[in-house]
Amino acid sequence: MRDIIQQVKDWQAAGETQIVLATIVETRGSSLRPSGTRMALNSKGDIAGSVSSGCVDGDVVAEMEAVLNGESLLRRPFFGVTDELAWGAGLACGGSIDVLVEPWQPLYAVLIEELEARNTVAFASRLDKPSHLLNKANGDTLGTLGDPDLDGAVLMDIAAAWPLPYAQKHAYPQGDVLIEVIPPPPTLLIFGATDFAVPLANMAQILDFSVIVSDARRAFLREEKFPGAEVRFGWPQEVFQPADIGSGWAVVVLFHDLKFDVPALSLALMSEAFYIGFMGSQKTQSERRAALAANGFKDSALDRIYGPIGLNIGGKSPGMIALSILSEIVAVWNRRDGGMMRQRKQEVLYV
Amino acid sequence: MRDIIQQVKDWQAAGETQIVLATIVETRGSSLRPSGTRMALNSKGDIAGSVSSGCVDGDVVAEMEAVLNGESLLRRPFFGVTDELAWGAGLACGGSIDVLVEPWQPLYAVLIEELEARNTVAFASRLDKPSHLLNKANGDTLGTLGDPDLDGAVLMDIAAAWPLPYAQKHAYPQGDVLIEVIPPPPTLLIFGATDFAVPLANMAQILDFSVIVSDARRAFLREEKFPGAEVRFGWPQEVFQPADIGSGWAVVVLFHDLKFDVPALSLALMSEAFYIGFMGSQKTQSERRAALAANGFKDSALDRIYGPIGLNIGGKSPGMIALSILSEIVAVWNRRDGGMMRQRKQEVLYV
Repeated sequence: MRDIIQQVKDWQAAGETQIVLATIVETRGSSLRPSGTRMALNSKGDIAGSVSSGCVDGDVVAEMEAVLNGESLLRRPFFGVTDELAWGAGLACGGSIDVLVEPWQPLYAVLIEELEARNTVAFASRLDKPSHLLNKANGDTLGTLGDPDLDGAVLMDIAAAWPLPYAQKHAYPQGDVLIEVIPPPPTLLIFGATDFAVPLANMAQILDFSVIVSDARRAFLREEKFPGAEVRFGWPQEVFQPADIGSGWAVVVLFHDLKFDVPALSLALMSEAFYIGFMGSQKTQSERRAALAANGFKDSALDRIYGPIGLNIGGKSPGMIALSILSEIVAVWNRRDGGMMRQRKQEVLYV
Repeated sequence: MRDIIQQVKDWQAAGETQIVLATIVETRGSSLRPSGTRMALNSKGDIAGSVSSGCVDGDVVAEMEAVLNGESLLRRPFFGVTDELAWGAGLACGGSIDVLVEPWQPLYAVLIEELEARNTVAFASRLDKPSHLLNKANGDTLGTLGDPDLDGAVLMDIAAAWPLPYAQKHAYPQGDVLIEVIPPPPTLLIFGATDFAVPLANMAQILDFSVIVSDARRAFLREEKFPGAEVRFGWPQEVFQPADIGSGWAVVVLFHDLKFDVPALSLALMSEAFYIGFMGSQKTQSERRAALAANGFKDSALDRIYGPIGLNIGGKSPGMIALSILSEIVAVWNRRDGGMMRQRKQEVLYV
């Protein structure tokens, strides 16, 4: 959804009121785009996004035009491709996608608001008629799937999936529902405006992370080094409260200096950060753990620290070390282990 | 060396003739910068680079000033730090660094030329007097370490280390020598100017890779999508010969289309590329392998292909997939496995 927001808003600002959305409900086998991916069509024929990076978009657009022209309120095209046909007009790599095509619903405006505010939000879409339910991070619920029991069951399944990225079709007695939990891209808080922080901040922004760089040393923390990032000057505990650092935050501590490391790590350990990375050798890791333990942190808490930091990809340049750190953050965010994809035994479902 | 070239050249362009270099010869325990890292000082007191990211740079500069002032021709400061002193004025994380301080030598100008031409180059530095030997990729040797037998022995050790990144102190009967082999940053050749190619090209340039993007589809291969990269329009075999693709090249095939994938992979397999990555599911991997096998490629050749491509860090956005690919390339370049650093058993020597 996030990738088409700006185009949809531009259309609406230009007075467009007729918009049709296509949403991937389910994929089997290999498909390039995951469930929850959306494409939009307006009355002028403009298209935003893609549900297949090309191969079946044309057919999906035909279904969207049918809804736009009022021929039906909702369509459920399914593109299953046999091996023999895989290289014909269908999905390049075999597999299948199940798509929901429906006209724009008012609740989509709320969904966009929540995504733009970078709030985690849940969105449920009934697959047999255009009806939705939206659950905000503050607990508010908007909309209905047309049946109080169904709404209740869906809200329970939303709670179980919250707050990690999620998009899955659920079957209920009342019908099938696509449930999505959509967190914002992570916020990366970098403590220590070092040489390593610069490529780390740049690369994280390519991934659409929010980036904050903090240091108490003016000579290091120069704003022009970190375009696009927020900079916060001061000691860790002066410029952040643990409650500021939510479950969508990754904290990276690069100071390499006891007097900054311990306050920064303490703050991170008292927060809900999903990732805490600390740059330093095994020896430095042990020393900091000892200092933190002396301050009352238990082993189970200290085990949240990823250190020595990063994936084992080698390289000593700031860019390569930044790459190693960012890859580990993404792996933890997605609950993966970092090893090489080709060494996994099972069928790999992406791409 | 690469990081200080521009500053040194600027100094020289401004008429500066007195330059002193400090080179890390050896590190023990944990140290932030590896052997071969250089710092430069000119007669105005300007400094380029760093040998310790701060902690002992001041002491090294004092040694450099002594050489600059003609007090000695060469200095060998050694900074060993006991655990007790580690948080004093020394190296933050313990360990030690052994540094060579010497005045600018004419052979450094040749070294800079080779690095700027992105040629792999070997450089040997005698540690008891300022004398050097340089070995070019074309086999030419310049300079001498002052003893033909020593030169011969060093050239053999250079050949053994060639062409991967290398910096190591060697002991010979005539004295100690720092041997460095310095390849240029890799060249990344991306076949398929897709959505994934854009963040991949951007991030690779942050790592100082040379990036080439090639596609036969004009609609995809728009130069403005790939700032800083070279674009080559045409079919793989029309725009590249296998001999163009050297041992410092990584080739990534993102077409996801049989008619482009097979020529691109064939070309890569006939080249010396250190990495060949192919985006596609296990099923697609098998199909392409079968097609390549039918064209005469043996299993041992096909095993060079990394596919499914990338490290297992999850995420389906183009940025996250690009991050996964680039991390795998760097891991292969440095002969690492990609797993999390904190899960390695042995002492980690970096940082």
